[in-house]
Amino acid sequence: MHGSNSWGRLFSLRSFGESHGPAMGGILQGYPSGVKIDVDFIQKCLDKRKPGQKNTSPRKEKDKIQILSGVFKGKSTGHPIGFLIENQNQKSKDYEKIKDIYRPSHADFTYDIKYGFRDYRGGGRSSARETANWVVAGAFAQLLLKKYELKVNASISQIGDLKLKGKKESRQKKIMAYLSEIKRLKDTVGGIIECETSRLPIGLGEPVFDKLSARLAHAMFCIPSVKGFDMGSGFKDVHKKGSELNDSFVVKNNQIEALNKNSGGVLGGISNGQQLQFRVAFKPVSSHALLQKSVTKQKTTTDIQIAGRHDPSVLLRALPVVEALTWMVIADFYLLNKLSNSKRF
Amino acid sequence: MHGSNSWGRLFSLRSFGESHGPAMGGILQGYPSGVKIDVDFIQKCLDKRKPGQKNTSPRKEKDKIQILSGVFKGKSTGHPIGFLIENQNQKSKDYEKIKDIYRPSHADFTYDIKYGFRDYRGGGRSSARETANWVVAGAFAQLLLKKYELKVNASISQIGDLKLKGKKESRQKKIMAYLSEIKRLKDTVGGIIECETSRLPIGLGEPVFDKLSARLAHAMFCIPSVKGFDMGSGFKDVHKKGSELNDSFVVKNNQIEALNKNSGGVLGGISNGQQLQFRVAFKPVSSHALLQKSVTKQKTTTDIQIAGRHDPSVLLRALPVVEALTWMVIADFYLLNKLSNSKRF
Amino acid sequence: MHGSNSWGRLFSLRSFGESHGPAMGGILQGYPSGVKIDVDFIQKCLDKRKPGQKNTSPRKEKDKIQILSGVFKGKSTGHPIGFLIENQNQKSKDYEKIKDIYRPSHADFTYDIKYGFRDYRGGGRSSARETANWVVAGAFAQLLLKKYELKVNASISQIGDLKLKGKKESRQKKIMAYLSEIKRLKDTVGGIIECETSRLPIGLGEPVFDKLSARLAHAMFCIPSVKGFDMGSGFKDVHKKGSELNDSFVVKNNQIEALNKNSGGVLGGISNGQQLQFRVAFKPVSSHALLQKSVTKQKTTTDIQIAGRHDPSVLLRALPVVEALTWMVIADFYLLNKLSNSKRF
Amino acid sequence: MHGSNSWGRLFSLRSFGESHGPAMGGILQGYPSGVKIDVDFIQKCLDKRKPGQKNTSPRKEKDKIQILSGVFKGKSTGHPIGFLIENQNQKSKDYEKIKDIYRPSHADFTYDIKYGFRDYRGGGRSSARETANWVVAGAFAQLLLKKYELKVNASISQIGDLKLKGKKESRQKKIMAYLSEIKRLKDTVGGIIECETSRLPIGLGEPVFDKLSARLAHAMFCIPSVKGFDMGSGFKDVHKKGSELNDSFVVKNNQIEALNKNSGGVLGGISNGQQLQFRVAFKPVSSHALLQKSVTKQKTTTDIQIAGRHDPSVLLRALPVVEALTWMVIADFYLLNKLSNSKRF
Repeated sequence: MHGSNSWGRLFSLRSFGESHGPAMGGILQGYPSGVKIDVDFIQKCLDKRKPGQKNTSPRKEKDKIQILSGVFKGKSTGHPIGFLIENQNQKSKDYEKIKDIYRPSHADFTYDIKYGFRDYRGGGRSSARETANWVVAGAFAQLLLKKYELKVNASISQIGDLKLKGKKESRQKKIMAYLSEIKRLKDTVGGIIECETSRLPIGLGEPVFDKLSARLAHAMFCIPSVKGFDMGSGFKDVHKKGSELNDSFVVKNNQIEALNKNSGGVLGGISNGQQLQFRVAFKPVSSHALLQKSVTKQKTTTDIQIAGRHDPSVLLRALPVVEALTWMVIADFYLLNKLSNSKRF
Repeated sequence: MHGSNSWGRLFSLRSFGESHGPAMGGILQGYPSGVKIDVDFIQKCLDKRKPGQKNTSPRKEKDKIQILSGVFKGKSTGHPIGFLIENQNQKSKDYEKIKDIYRPSHADFTYDIKYGFRDYRGGGRSSARETANWVVAGAFAQLLLKKYELKVNASISQIGDLKLKGKKESRQKKIMAYLSEIKRLKDTVGGIIECETSRLPIGLGEPVFDKLSARLAHAMFCIPSVKGFDMGSGFKDVHKKGSELNDSFVVKNNQIEALNKNSGGVLGGISNGQQLQFRVAFKPVSSHALLQKSVTKQKTTTDIQIAGRHDPSVLLRALPVVEALTWMVIADFYLLNKLSNSKRF
Repeated sequence: MHGSNSWGRLFSLRSFGESHGPAMGGILQGYPSGVKIDVDFIQKCLDKRKPGQKNTSPRKEKDKIQILSGVFKGKSTGHPIGFLIENQNQKSKDYEKIKDIYRPSHADFTYDIKYGFRDYRGGGRSSARETANWVVAGAFAQLLLKKYELKVNASISQIGDLKLKGKKESRQKKIMAYLSEIKRLKDTVGGIIECETSRLPIGLGEPVFDKLSARLAHAMFCIPSVKGFDMGSGFKDVHKKGSELNDSFVVKNNQIEALNKNSGGVLGGISNGQQLQFRVAFKPVSSHALLQKSVTKQKTTTDIQIAGRHDPSVLLRALPVVEALTWMVIADFYLLNKLSNSKRF
Repeated sequence: MHGSNSWGRLFSLRSFGESHGPAMGGILQGYPSGVKIDVDFIQKCLDKRKPGQKNTSPRKEKDKIQILSGVFKGKSTGHPIGFLIENQNQKSKDYEKIKDIYRPSHADFTYDIKYGFRDYRGGGRSSARETANWVVAGAFAQLLLKKYELKVNASISQIGDLKLKGKKESRQKKIMAYLSEIKRLKDTVGGIIECETSRLPIGLGEPVFDKLSARLAHAMFCIPSVKGFDMGSGFKDVHKKGSELNDSFVVKNNQIEALNKNSGGVLGGISNGQQLQFRVAFKPVSSHALLQKSVTKQKTTTDIQIAGRHDPSVLLRALPVVEALTWMVIADFYLLNKLSNSKRF
């Protein structure tokens, strides 16, 4: 069940950890027994979102996964999987100076009011470092679903005002050049990540309050800096008529299929056998290096210039995060779908 | 907790009902005792989304709320509130003819595959008639929060290719003229609903997986035909830089406030004391009256022309639904927020 | 998930209703599609716990089940099953007189303090009339599991100070004679119900916090008047040594089995393939017809003699309730067990 | 919410860990901010259940608590509290020999069938070592409730066939002498633990499916070896009449109170302001050192003599576990009770 730090109904993660605490970690519950757990694969997934790559935060973390339970002789046991990622590079001193200042567009202010005080080191629990936990959970989801040969692919379709098309490599080059320029300006940018899956089975998603589309939207809005989500025709084709957008059904290879992709792969909240197709809008990183106006806890006005180790854009490192959450959503619905029809029961 | 037919963590609705079954209804759990329950107010909320108004479906339903438990001598008792809305105008015969045909962009096909068969009368459980239950729950939420004097206001900012600004009345006129034309064309349109709340208290929303933004996105994507959701800068300002979008804090009347509204009222997933501001994108109603191509359950190609009682656009009737879900989200987080700080405990 | 008025993780009931309100009812969620729903069978189950039989409360209720959703053409659709049982015989006047008096050993006092006021008619939400909802849910559970040919059998092993052995009929005679005498004394008695199931499959129940034994204990303690629960050796063999009580494993017909029944059918919280065997202790009905001392809401001392329609013992009518809850627990764990092993997934 | 490895609705623990894995641990969610966290106190609670004391298992574990998140500058932050207890003394070799043998009355057999295989070292996830996690959670619960000055006291009222009365010290002496004798016999015994709380506030517990009594029963049945639970009059007074057992209300010091204690502190599932009073029946430890008959995974008959580090009775070490679970139940209901009445909201 969802809760402030728990995610998923059957495939369920509860996580913990602050940016500058001793460790991040979580407990996966509901993971079936007998799944081959490839720890190297999980580590590789983690490595993809690791800081310290070009045009990402220079913070150095080894981000080594430690599995503490639920795996025995290389296979999942059906019992909860406890895991840890130690935080190794916590320069808390950076934050002592600004512990009473509310960084613009950060959670410092709302956390302070809600909880009475906060762990001010690196955003504490609000830090995007939490997404490392999700990448671990996503990797476990992927191992669970390995036999189904699905694919999930996230890519950047817009970064700042730069729109991208074409092959991955040529996109990547343009992005790196663009980000170098943004970095030079000490500024930050957001953008749009598009995500597509290969054909899921028909039937994932549950009606009314647990639609596949609703759960994807929910999941993506958990990523720090996300401000928008749409599927299929979404916002961009909102002006078109029903006669233009309806996806007629056809029979292909003796299978019923929808002819075009305006629904984004979901009908009535349930996967229809087409590619899932959705877009996630990110705002720019709030921590840019230019001078900003702000206030202190004590309600005095102040200037603030955020030092520290920050990305000009989160989009590069958000790609594996978007994919991980998508895997988690899919895995949860695979398990739920087992139960909806008494013939499968 | 969320589940396929349950919504909310503390303020929690479980609902039931098919479009052409005997009744819709639900059970509200977690509703505190001692709240004055104004049944006329609830009925008025229901009347706002009632079919049979101009340019909405001509289906005639009295939509009368019946409260079966949890209210005694005009006040909530703290026990579950069971309620019913009888379905009175079920012309099931309309549907016998198309019981084996998958209507394009409807849930007929996915329901059939997922469950093995379906109640084909009016979409069964996938029908937007379910939203009547939500309007009841939203009205109860509003009664619970009455003392806090909040406001929630949804309005249409775009319908089809018609963009709207200015006063509510002048918008309404343009919308009605536009819809009459769409109806004449036997076509349908979608659009964008904007929703704003008056200033919520700071602190609603829970970190990580239960952010106010994530829960709003989840809730809105439960509405049939919704394909997009964004907050604040969202998709429309995705090209802007951090230095342009960051909301500096200022002190006004001895209160800390954010200077502008790019965050949409949420920082770190928690309300920051500003107006909530979000947009919901709807696709056109799938049931237009033009001829469409489709297939049957038996995989034969067929033409289909959907008769029945359909709206040229759901947007008019979706306004009270967007508002109701917003009230439900807010009520749930009010209750949760009571518990986050031991000083309030 | 469990909650104040919700029961079960996958096979899940949420219920509502007060003793003297217009109706009892509930919503079953998580019920798979395609199950043949025999409404006569459900009605027969309800009839077994109906008041108005000899030595039970003379309150007359037809207790007719109405199914409002989730069943189409005689089969479950996979969508929530809303159901209603109207209350037809509410003599609320009986209760006006004692609305300010706290009946000894009833929930009147605790409800008043917890909620500020209460529906004083017949105990409101605390009434055992709620168990009618459970009998409906239990009947649905039984229909779901029909193909597995399980049996659940509850019987009275002690009523007041009368211990019972032997055949059901001879027990029944003794019970009726005993209760007539108790009734003549205007007093009430409790007792012990034993429940046994035929051999469940091995593997029902989940480790640690969701053990089959823990869930049965939880379920039984939801029945009004229950004060004790034990399984297998339980309280009665608590003096015996490990060497006496351990259930050695043997191989019978090429199956591994436990030799004796001290574990009550559960090892490590999981069904071991033996009969489940548990006992439930009930206190006497609190509403006896003798004069009692009590106090009013206004803290004045008073005498109270409870008129109304009361049973000399709940045990006869509790038998179908114990069985219904057992079916519900089993059904929930059947669904959960589908998911624990990736080979079944 | 309850689930196989999660406990509690608002004050919620999710735990992990196998007896012979690298560590036990858990995540507490829903813990309010601003509570002073006395780590020494938590460590002292853990020390009370530590193995290696006289007449308990000689396994040596330092059982040192490590808090990884959710506490900052000595106070809870309102964010999830991750904690670890490393396992330091895992002699796995003891278990290699019996990895294919199903120890009588242990979970080896049911785990193997349910999950396809198991971590056979020390019972894996079914080990009572898990209770160390609960003692940590119970200590956190106690810190949360410190200001309310409650007391929870568990004591042994029967061990094997030895019934105990009188002062704690004189009981303890008799118990130690008795257990030395049992140990000499290489046998094991169970017994009964009684638990009492000081007067709780009136109103803890929720109606119908979340009664205080039901949650206590559920919690206690999670402890390995528990076979029975009763409250107040329970099993022992089951023969008495309503006129004997009803607890009349009286007014004392201008407070309404129940005159005697047959209800065990609960009316209608809700605390009535009296002491809670319940009893928990334990079976003997299944691992005695005498020769037993059993079977292997391969269905061959075998003799087994369990070496390893085992207690002649779990009762001494179960005392802090019973208390910890009671604290957890109370803390959860304290939080829930905040929300039941709109005057407190």
